[in-house]
Amino acid sequence: MAKVGLVMGSISDWPTMQVAAQQLDALGITYERHVISAHRMPRTLQAYGEQAVANDLQVIIAGAGGAAHLPGMLAANTVLPVIGVPIKTRALNGMDSLLSIVQMPGGVPVATMAIGEAGAKNAALMAAQILGLQDARVQRAVSDFRDQQRQEAEQSERQF
Amino acid sequence: MAKVGLVMGSISDWPTMQVAAQQLDALGITYERHVISAHRMPRTLQAYGEQAVANDLQVIIAGAGGAAHLPGMLAANTVLPVIGVPIKTRALNGMDSLLSIVQMPGGVPVATMAIGEAGAKNAALMAAQILGLQDARVQRAVSDFRDQQRQEAEQSERQF
Amino acid sequence: MAKVGLVMGSISDWPTMQVAAQQLDALGITYERHVISAHRMPRTLQAYGEQAVANDLQVIIAGAGGAAHLPGMLAANTVLPVIGVPIKTRALNGMDSLLSIVQMPGGVPVATMAIGEAGAKNAALMAAQILGLQDARVQRAVSDFRDQQRQEAEQSERQF
Amino acid sequence: MAKVGLVMGSISDWPTMQVAAQQLDALGITYERHVISAHRMPRTLQAYGEQAVANDLQVIIAGAGGAAHLPGMLAANTVLPVIGVPIKTRALNGMDSLLSIVQMPGGVPVATMAIGEAGAKNAALMAAQILGLQDARVQRAVSDFRDQQRQEAEQSERQF
Amino acid sequence: MAKVGLVMGSISDWPTMQVAAQQLDALGITYERHVISAHRMPRTLQAYGEQAVANDLQVIIAGAGGAAHLPGMLAANTVLPVIGVPIKTRALNGMDSLLSIVQMPGGVPVATMAIGEAGAKNAALMAAQILGLQDARVQRAVSDFRDQQRQEAEQSERQF
Amino acid sequence: MAKVGLVMGSISDWPTMQVAAQQLDALGITYERHVISAHRMPRTLQAYGEQAVANDLQVIIAGAGGAAHLPGMLAANTVLPVIGVPIKTRALNGMDSLLSIVQMPGGVPVATMAIGEAGAKNAALMAAQILGLQDARVQRAVSDFRDQQRQEAEQSERQF
Amino acid sequence: MAKVGLVMGSISDWPTMQVAAQQLDALGITYERHVISAHRMPRTLQAYGEQAVANDLQVIIAGAGGAAHLPGMLAANTVLPVIGVPIKTRALNGMDSLLSIVQMPGGVPVATMAIGEAGAKNAALMAAQILGLQDARVQRAVSDFRDQQRQEAEQSERQF
Amino acid sequence: MAKVGLVMGSISDWPTMQVAAQQLDALGITYERHVISAHRMPRTLQAYGEQAVANDLQVIIAGAGGAAHLPGMLAANTVLPVIGVPIKTRALNGMDSLLSIVQMPGGVPVATMAIGEAGAKNAALMAAQILGLQDARVQRAVSDFRDQQRQEAEQSERQF
Repeated sequence: MAKVGLVMGSISDWPTMQVAAQQLDALGITYERHVISAHRMPRTLQAYGEQAVANDLQVIIAGAGGAAHLPGMLAANTVLPVIGVPIKTRALNGMDSLLSIVQMPGGVPVATMAIGEAGAKNAALMAAQILGLQDARVQRAVSDFRDQQRQEAEQSERQF
Repeated sequence: MAKVGLVMGSISDWPTMQVAAQQLDALGITYERHVISAHRMPRTLQAYGEQAVANDLQVIIAGAGGAAHLPGMLAANTVLPVIGVPIKTRALNGMDSLLSIVQMPGGVPVATMAIGEAGAKNAALMAAQILGLQDARVQRAVSDFRDQQRQEAEQSERQF
Repeated sequence: MAKVGLVMGSISDWPTMQVAAQQLDALGITYERHVISAHRMPRTLQAYGEQAVANDLQVIIAGAGGAAHLPGMLAANTVLPVIGVPIKTRALNGMDSLLSIVQMPGGVPVATMAIGEAGAKNAALMAAQILGLQDARVQRAVSDFRDQQRQEAEQSERQF
Repeated sequence: MAKVGLVMGSISDWPTMQVAAQQLDALGITYERHVISAHRMPRTLQAYGEQAVANDLQVIIAGAGGAAHLPGMLAANTVLPVIGVPIKTRALNGMDSLLSIVQMPGGVPVATMAIGEAGAKNAALMAAQILGLQDARVQRAVSDFRDQQRQEAEQSERQF
Repeated sequence: MAKVGLVMGSISDWPTMQVAAQQLDALGITYERHVISAHRMPRTLQAYGEQAVANDLQVIIAGAGGAAHLPGMLAANTVLPVIGVPIKTRALNGMDSLLSIVQMPGGVPVATMAIGEAGAKNAALMAAQILGLQDARVQRAVSDFRDQQRQEAEQSERQF
Repeated sequence: MAKVGLVMGSISDWPTMQVAAQQLDALGITYERHVISAHRMPRTLQAYGEQAVANDLQVIIAGAGGAAHLPGMLAANTVLPVIGVPIKTRALNGMDSLLSIVQMPGGVPVATMAIGEAGAKNAALMAAQILGLQDARVQRAVSDFRDQQRQEAEQSERQF
Repeated sequence: MAKVGLVMGSISDWPTMQVAAQQLDALGITYERHVISAHRMPRTLQAYGEQAVANDLQVIIAGAGGAAHLPGMLAANTVLPVIGVPIKTRALNGMDSLLSIVQMPGGVPVATMAIGEAGAKNAALMAAQILGLQDARVQRAVSDFRDQQRQEAEQSERQF
Repeated sequence: MAKVGLVMGSISDWPTMQVAAQQLDALGITYERHVISAHRMPRTLQAYGEQAVANDLQVIIAGAGGAAHLPGMLAANTVLPVIGVPIKTRALNGMDSLLSIVQMPGGVPVATMAIGEAGAKNAALMAAQILGLQDARVQRAVSDFRDQQRQEAEQSERQF
């Protein structure tokens, strides 16, 4: 049963968001993935947010670009933690996506990550860190991933 | 019967948005005004957008600040023209509001105005210019307003 | 008879603005298209704005880049709604175009769209939404377009 | 026993961060609060991160301004979720704080909130949403808070 | 007979533009001053540009804020040098004015000054430097002004 | 005898600045061209500014990128009009060059043009417009150029 | 004998730069202070840079705002380390100063500090850290200052 | 024995940072180079800073991108001068790196260079200028380098 809902505003966001998917896979975290356009499918968006708890999701990861309303509107419709990934855009490089996601008003938070692929990877890790609070296996997987990336960095250093 | 729906995300937006209201009044355009928070009242927002045509509205003016989702989400739920007013914000002066409103994806437009009071005033005028296409009285009111402001500017010039 | 005037500041804006033209075609809306440089042809610009009502136009779409004066100067010369499309620029990616178009002073609005092709497409849709207020066929075309793009998004979702 | 570590880089951040504290209080969530300067007390910072799990913390909220290294360095030293609050700065209004917190490299996420007080409030709510996954009482408190703010917004609307 | 046309988009620009006027006075340069709103008085603007040579003007100084079209549109209508002064704006501090004035397309230049009062002062000095090419008295006045400000700076240094 | 000094901070600026050279050629204006690095050849820079009047120059065009000190330091050393061209930079696209050139303090103006090639072309035209005040042949050349570019734009329009 | 040259572009920079002076005093480092305007006193600037080594200075601290050429032009004229302090400006808050100082071309570095008073204080500390490499007393003073500020931060923490 | 510690946050920063290495080599300055990720190897980072004096280093050069914490955290752990190089990033072109490095709080300075390769080259030169205060050979090497680059610029000028 999926723990994480991985949602994006458009299929064109997949090249970025699949980095999140791969990281979730690597950590052994189940997820469901969806394309839900905030502006084309507003009812689906609302229903997805409203039913997320009932569907036994624990965390939602939402990626969107430009006037990126998807993460914030999902957050408005659920009490689950929503993690936002600003997708890099053509004209403004994702600065528009970042501000549209992070500058939420007091009352409805979105946990915002970096712009682009680094943000997508980190969304998966943040989801794992949240799930790890109640699942020792997941927390250990995060811990192992941290060890592994430290070792890789140390190896870069040794071979430098 | 109201022609224009004047909506804002928070009562704290009223000092800006009342400039729109005053301009609508001055042009003799009926409007209804509402506080609909995109993030606190997402169902009301969606219902308002979906029923706007049935409620005989012609134009929606929506003001919001920060991660300003209100104009775009209304636009996603109606085929009426939606005019967006970026509210000036404390930290980023409304640049966040502007980008969150104007950078809509292809398919769902929001007619974006300038940040703050000038934008609110212009939202009312744009609404009037749209309504004026089918209502000669309104178009004349716009035209008269234009004459009046030209005369005021000319008077500034003469008295300068 | 053309309902929409589709104007751009330079022939080099056509790759962006043809997205607007294609969308107008797809919605069955007649338009005339023009290259009118605000800085090279200021008299033509002024005449175009002044005669737009007499020429039975209903909406003007104007695209321009950099110190993008075309939309605002057309707006200054007509009571028709003017929709502005900020063209992406080489150095500043269209942020200059966006601010030059959207930050109009109180009294003369330009309905500003997103930077680049998404904005061009949306300009056509906004024009259609405005025309649809008095032409049920156009409003239905917009509505159908919305249904179609929702279905495409849903199909992305199903095939994902 | 404290569930949340509320940390700030300087006592001068308290006027902002106390908004987080008040919201945690209102939700009935225990927290400990600390001033830990990343640049003046780097060893304390590192120890705090490293011992956070052993100290039975579940979530860390860290506020910092300018070259805001505190949230990211805490995140580098723990597998607990770290929520970052960009403090508004004098010269750059917190845009420096925001980028220094949100643009973390792939591998070490910080859940970034809006600049300033709205972000501080939302940090508390995000912490509650995370804790609520394993504590039905907290999730209900969030849910009640949401209801309450929706009702307040609706009352604004009714009295408008 | 006035050598310089000192034009501003609104009487509200006068507190900034009077710094230019005072500097012209101090240098003994005659000027005429006008309020010509690009958006409210487009015909006056065009006529002013077109007749500037015939009116024996030599240089035009134009100040405007926001979507600051005045300097560029005057430049489009005359072969006299046009100097642009970006007025500081409420929301974007004049960054919008600056980009709207400086980012002119190839073919029609505006000599852009700094934002605000420093820019207004410098507009007067640039006008004088241009006039000084054919008027030894004016060039000497600029030269004297330079000496004087150097001496004032040196006195600051001595008394420091 | 050269009327215009065309100066750039590095030979790498030539691809941009040759657009100015070509435009000066096209207008029949004599110029000398130099590479003078503000930071590598500060004495040459100062001497060039100080002797510019004695060398019978009338206008200086200076292009520079990044912390672009060349135009401002030339302006500090001469009473001739100095026109600045911000060169597009790799990281910040010329926004750094623009601000370093345009934001001169009150007392020493630089006539700033657009970033990159459009700015280089316009620098030549602004020089010509200045020289044209005392040389009817040059003013006519500018006027002819304006006619020509208007005709080209009109031809674009006719063939569109 | 002064070790540090503390230079600013205008007496109006003193409220910021005196923070550097006070920090130098507190560390027991001798300095001379000067007002040298890059644009009003270019010869003084050049002489100051050229003679800095002969005058037994070791480090130069230079503060300037806007098109802040002072630090870079001093750096161009000496092989001593030059530390730049971007002064906060009215319109652009010091972002112009920062970019004008930090974006130096390869070959002539300026050690750039934060915008405003924090940067002024840090300029003094950086000067001390540089001088401390050859003067154990100064290095100990820096070390003591670090201890002291750590203790103050720890006291903030204890009293919190 | 190495005088300079050349540190970068990731092996991917090497293409930029090797420009610093080459410049150090050209000036005959010994250095050690390391990959130390602030976020993956925080303990190594801290130890490196703490032991830098004992290891007889004199200057640290640190390059990092995005939320670039490496230079600031090294600075927090040593009284040696730390020079920061903002690495160009994909989405924000290094503006994030620049602000994360330069906007250090009062008390802990980082000597910040330009974004990218120019900054890396200048970091090496700044290190040499600092070391040159106590090593006449190094100061002469800097002086020779300056002469050489002036001659190259002059040759560009002569051959132009």
